[in-house]
Amino acid sequence: MGSIERIEHVAGKVIQAKRDGHDIVVVVSAMSGETNRLLEMANQISDSPVPRELDVLLSTGEQVSIALLSMALEKQGFSARSYTGTQVNILTDSAHNKARIERIDDSRICTDLGEGSIVVVAGFQGVDDNGNITTLGRGGSDTTAVALAAALNADECRIYTDVDGVYTTDPRVEPKARRLSQITFEEMLEMASLGSKVLQIRAVEFAGKYQVPLRVLSTFEEGEGTLITLEDEDMEAARISGIAFNRDEAQLTITGVPDHPGIAAGILGPISDANIEVDMIVQNVAGDDTTDFTCTVHRGDYDKALAILSDTAKKLGAREVSGDPEIVKLSLVGVGMRSHAGIASKMFKALADENINIRMISTSEIKISVVIEEKYLELGVRALHSAFGLEEDN
Amino acid sequence: MGSIERIEHVAGKVIQAKRDGHDIVVVVSAMSGETNRLLEMANQISDSPVPRELDVLLSTGEQVSIALLSMALEKQGFSARSYTGTQVNILTDSAHNKARIERIDDSRICTDLGEGSIVVVAGFQGVDDNGNITTLGRGGSDTTAVALAAALNADECRIYTDVDGVYTTDPRVEPKARRLSQITFEEMLEMASLGSKVLQIRAVEFAGKYQVPLRVLSTFEEGEGTLITLEDEDMEAARISGIAFNRDEAQLTITGVPDHPGIAAGILGPISDANIEVDMIVQNVAGDDTTDFTCTVHRGDYDKALAILSDTAKKLGAREVSGDPEIVKLSLVGVGMRSHAGIASKMFKALADENINIRMISTSEIKISVVIEEKYLELGVRALHSAFGLEEDN
Repeated sequence: MGSIERIEHVAGKVIQAKRDGHDIVVVVSAMSGETNRLLEMANQISDSPVPRELDVLLSTGEQVSIALLSMALEKQGFSARSYTGTQVNILTDSAHNKARIERIDDSRICTDLGEGSIVVVAGFQGVDDNGNITTLGRGGSDTTAVALAAALNADECRIYTDVDGVYTTDPRVEPKARRLSQITFEEMLEMASLGSKVLQIRAVEFAGKYQVPLRVLSTFEEGEGTLITLEDEDMEAARISGIAFNRDEAQLTITGVPDHPGIAAGILGPISDANIEVDMIVQNVAGDDTTDFTCTVHRGDYDKALAILSDTAKKLGAREVSGDPEIVKLSLVGVGMRSHAGIASKMFKALADENINIRMISTSEIKISVVIEEKYLELGVRALHSAFGLEEDN
Repeated sequence: MGSIERIEHVAGKVIQAKRDGHDIVVVVSAMSGETNRLLEMANQISDSPVPRELDVLLSTGEQVSIALLSMALEKQGFSARSYTGTQVNILTDSAHNKARIERIDDSRICTDLGEGSIVVVAGFQGVDDNGNITTLGRGGSDTTAVALAAALNADECRIYTDVDGVYTTDPRVEPKARRLSQITFEEMLEMASLGSKVLQIRAVEFAGKYQVPLRVLSTFEEGEGTLITLEDEDMEAARISGIAFNRDEAQLTITGVPDHPGIAAGILGPISDANIEVDMIVQNVAGDDTTDFTCTVHRGDYDKALAILSDTAKKLGAREVSGDPEIVKLSLVGVGMRSHAGIASKMFKALADENINIRMISTSEIKISVVIEEKYLELGVRALHSAFGLEEDN
């Protein structure tokens, strides 16, 4: 019942946009809980359902949604036509459950739009060269929307979510967090990968690659949301977009490693062989002929990685291995940051003023990340948010 | 949960047939209750959902089934491949919600069978020339199975239902009713249309047209079921297959109608203009220059039809209109019946022996129908069942 109401609500949003004079293509995902219901049925039959058949099963979730939304639109007097991934020929590779879009045939969509119809497309699904149904993996509806927007050369791709935009940081940590009216694709990628899970990373990458303007809005609240665009002129000035953080990290350090070429590979090799992903990597030359090496891994991999590193330390004749599973990564994200050295020192000073010790530092074109003790997370976020004036409209 | 168990049960049946050395194509319908669940969602949105979108919605029911059954087969170590109506190209006309199959492309199925796979096809659905999803209407899965069997030139088309075959009459009325091991298509049509709702009439017509041997079996019990075939040699002898009946009839009679050409049309015209379907029609010449005319209609149309007939009687100057809403039709069904006049008299005598008055008689190539008072239904069925020795193996 709640789900049907939601469909009618979405129909209202679509009709509003149509009345504003736009040609509309809507991409929908499955109704709330539907994908889990289908997965549960599959798991009742098999612990590891055949990937091809899992796609046949899961794709029905979105197919139900496109039919119901089209009915709701038609009931309001608007011409609407639904399409599955197969029908609109969203051609993907054959990697069932995690397929990638290769090509979209937009001819039927263009014909329908030309006739004034609203086109409703099932997200998350496609079809391979042999007519097999594929799915793009969880959250793939965002990717479908961006890919269609790119194929149709759309003015804008609007992603409706349960938040009303991208914030300067997590409002649960810093109540003064402010919604950004605009952010670049690169910044969004940093924000997303660091824990602001508003959009699927793949959708943002896709949008950036094909230069599709993306707007994140709330399904339930009115508002302009956040526009994700290419870098523009007035972004040349150093602009801090926000503060991202990641609670799930753990730190590993190996000190007094005899320094010679290939040492980093010698340390990281065994860790990556064990399928452990490494996030930050920092190497410092020590005073003597040795070097200190620190990296962070996902907290769940800490014990395993520590054991591997201890082995490696013995082999390499290193002095000591240490670690800390209770650290967090804090990142300041913004374009134009590199050309403004003052930003880094301002960031470090703001943390020092609160007596927060910085364990590691790493920088990129558009972000500066530091590792600190977990207990300082909230304090650190608020200190930076205030130091860079993010609560004010920039 | 019960539904998942049922799918695993069906998988067991399929595997048994595969082990018996057959190439198998399975046609499945939606899980119990699924079609109604989908219909309810559509009706929450609209009293009259757009037919095109209703098909997109309803077709997901069977798509879920093919995926789950294929998973269940693969789990048991058998190669299985599922296909929607679109994928296997079950081409239909564009009459949404009641489409008719025009052509089937069996190339993918033949390839899979050749590789030893079990092919699982979604029943009830197809695709039109423009790639729109269509459905064949309720119960259409039987028709899909027959059409596929015809296209593939299958040895046999097995329809699994909740009964274990076709009976000489309804076992709830005559406990001595016996399962028929064989019946002709024509007999089956008479039995089905007269209330033995084992199979969809369209599926039987289709099977007859394309000469596909059809076997009705129980999903839950072991057994040979009933084979529905073309007439064969030893059927030349008068053979009674069974006794069908229809409780839902009502009788209307108009007497003393001045007899002249066109009188039947004059009486039936107004009834059919009111969209009332007429079943049996009997006209008798009376002694004078008038005629008596009797017909039966569905019991729910009785009052309406009686009012129309009374009007007609006035206009035509007929003597009287009468009727009885509490009558039933009893039919003896069997091939070779026409050439054996003795059968009719045996039937009438059996009823007379029980003091059952016959109101109307009508005959066709393979059936003799009589109308009697409703209260004699059970007695009449048992009298005929016994008179024609149907409890014995014929």
